[in-house]
Amino acid sequence: MASRTVRISLDAMGGDHGPEVVVPGAAIALERRPGIHFLLFGDRARIEAALAPHPALKAAAEVRHTDVAISMTDKPSQALRAGRRVSSMWQALEAVKKGEADVCVSAGNTGALMAMAMFCLKLMAGVDRPAMAGLWPTLRSESIVLDVGATIGADARRLVSLAVMGAAMARIVLGIDRPSVGLLNVGIEEVKGIEEVKEAGKFLREADLPGMRYHGFVEGDDIGRGTTDVVVIEGFTGNIALKTAEGTAKQIAQYLRGAMNSSLMARIGYLFARGAFNALREKMDPRKANGAVFLGLEGIAVKSHGGADALGVASAIDVAYDMANFDLRTMIRDSLAATEAQRMSLSFAAEAEQHS
Amino acid sequence: MASRTVRISLDAMGGDHGPEVVVPGAAIALERRPGIHFLLFGDRARIEAALAPHPALKAAAEVRHTDVAISMTDKPSQALRAGRRVSSMWQALEAVKKGEADVCVSAGNTGALMAMAMFCLKLMAGVDRPAMAGLWPTLRSESIVLDVGATIGADARRLVSLAVMGAAMARIVLGIDRPSVGLLNVGIEEVKGIEEVKEAGKFLREADLPGMRYHGFVEGDDIGRGTTDVVVIEGFTGNIALKTAEGTAKQIAQYLRGAMNSSLMARIGYLFARGAFNALREKMDPRKANGAVFLGLEGIAVKSHGGADALGVASAIDVAYDMANFDLRTMIRDSLAATEAQRMSLSFAAEAEQHS
Repeated sequence: MASRTVRISLDAMGGDHGPEVVVPGAAIALERRPGIHFLLFGDRARIEAALAPHPALKAAAEVRHTDVAISMTDKPSQALRAGRRVSSMWQALEAVKKGEADVCVSAGNTGALMAMAMFCLKLMAGVDRPAMAGLWPTLRSESIVLDVGATIGADARRLVSLAVMGAAMARIVLGIDRPSVGLLNVGIEEVKGIEEVKEAGKFLREADLPGMRYHGFVEGDDIGRGTTDVVVIEGFTGNIALKTAEGTAKQIAQYLRGAMNSSLMARIGYLFARGAFNALREKMDPRKANGAVFLGLEGIAVKSHGGADALGVASAIDVAYDMANFDLRTMIRDSLAATEAQRMSLSFAAEAEQHS
Repeated sequence: MASRTVRISLDAMGGDHGPEVVVPGAAIALERRPGIHFLLFGDRARIEAALAPHPALKAAAEVRHTDVAISMTDKPSQALRAGRRVSSMWQALEAVKKGEADVCVSAGNTGALMAMAMFCLKLMAGVDRPAMAGLWPTLRSESIVLDVGATIGADARRLVSLAVMGAAMARIVLGIDRPSVGLLNVGIEEVKGIEEVKEAGKFLREADLPGMRYHGFVEGDDIGRGTTDVVVIEGFTGNIALKTAEGTAKQIAQYLRGAMNSSLMARIGYLFARGAFNALREKMDPRKANGAVFLGLEGIAVKSHGGADALGVASAIDVAYDMANFDLRTMIRDSLAATEAQRMSLSFAAEAEQHS
């Protein structure tokens, strides 16, 4: 299954730069994975101009013209009003819905993309709101953190769905049969934290679901340590944790630049260690972790960072490729169904116990 | 006022190491600020042994023996049951209550310290639960972030109290008349985020309180950037943000160590730049930012990290010194009263408008 053609629909107008960055990004992705076929939605003239230097991509892509592009500052309601059916973002999503594409990638604004994805692709049965999952580089390798900002708040049931969807994604991205799952909390003892998290933890422990190994609670510093393959949290705290980590990384990078410029000796040292610094810079390159996946929809959409350059867009396309190639949607649907069955069997068992 | 004697009560048994670390920490703090008088609570024999190498501290300290010490793993309820009145932690707090000390410092476990502080010192009028404020190093200087984990959840009224208390602390620590205050949220537009945060933002904008400049919403990456002097968030997300940032800092430090050991050239470069690396290490030293302040109590308590060494304990004592020297408690009480008056005048004005 790993070598079939994956059809990716691209919102070529998304992001701060549009086709001039999205198209070269697709060209890089295609070099890495020659089995991609692209559907490019947006302004035909701009897209074709951007395609000209990339004949291989041109041969593997079909351009579909749209007149309307969603701007990075449009509110979700504006985007839906002005862009439903007619915008490049909508049509890229619709291609997935119609079965013309396996997955959609957009660097457009998050709120608009989420609203359109919900309207166009629809929610999966048993999911109340979409989630956004990010790849987080850790000391061990990479972890999947969700929800990093699609939906504010979560009851226990939703936290369990997040765990199930995140584990499905981890099986694909990390290639682990039973990825470990942690619930993010303010302490690791079972009595700590908010009720929803405690209740979700209790269920996950008792249910012992087939596609994951429930680890228990984890704290903020466990994310970077890579304590678990999947970290589950509702979207308000998840978004703040992600951005706080990004801020800390930028802050330390700036400290480091300052230190390496602080004296002649430091600058000489920097010259000697330049190779190591380049490797470090590459390791910390936020473009490599680009590509958050919308989960819980009847179709997969991947959000690239709006400010991403071509390399960043290529990373997001890589993520989309994997999700489509290994059929994340079916995997999630099956896992959610298994979870529901387990939930019912646990509650029957509890009831039977009461009556015995 | 800056040079009066500040009386500090120390829970000498707190933390992972007890008097063997707390007492040398006090000695370092006393060298920096000779105007401190210490009350040391705990096991007399161990404290006096630790005092022996520090004659100046010995002369500025009074030892009060206690038989009971709260362990780092005691639950708050256990701690209260076993340690109320008789433990070093309780008695250090009680010294503040009795007016024998201006401020208390403990490296004991957070939950126990918070429970004891609430029981012993009592909450301030108008405050429903205590908060914990941390000093966060930023690219600009330092910011105060609260609540970093004392109380889970906050309605709009509590978020406003946090803003007021944080601003009072910033006036002291940062020496700014009207520190800027941001509410941590998932976006900076006024329509984003959860209701409580939006409502608190509306009040702070309208009230335009004297002791602060309300900036608006900030996002996770604004903390490290130092966008505002004070960052306000409820304790669940605040704790996770703080620990996530700590985790990221550790992760990058480890990457950096790995990079500098990755080749002979890198090791040579490291030798040249060693001075710069040492300065960087000092800048990122978590011991320097040690000392979280419990706010909202009728008395000030400072929590030192349980694993802190003597330098870390000294930092926490520094923080405590400033809080007591500039009378944080009175400042907070006055600010909260002014906020309440403003709240009433705004609601009268709104009512008058309705009737006109």
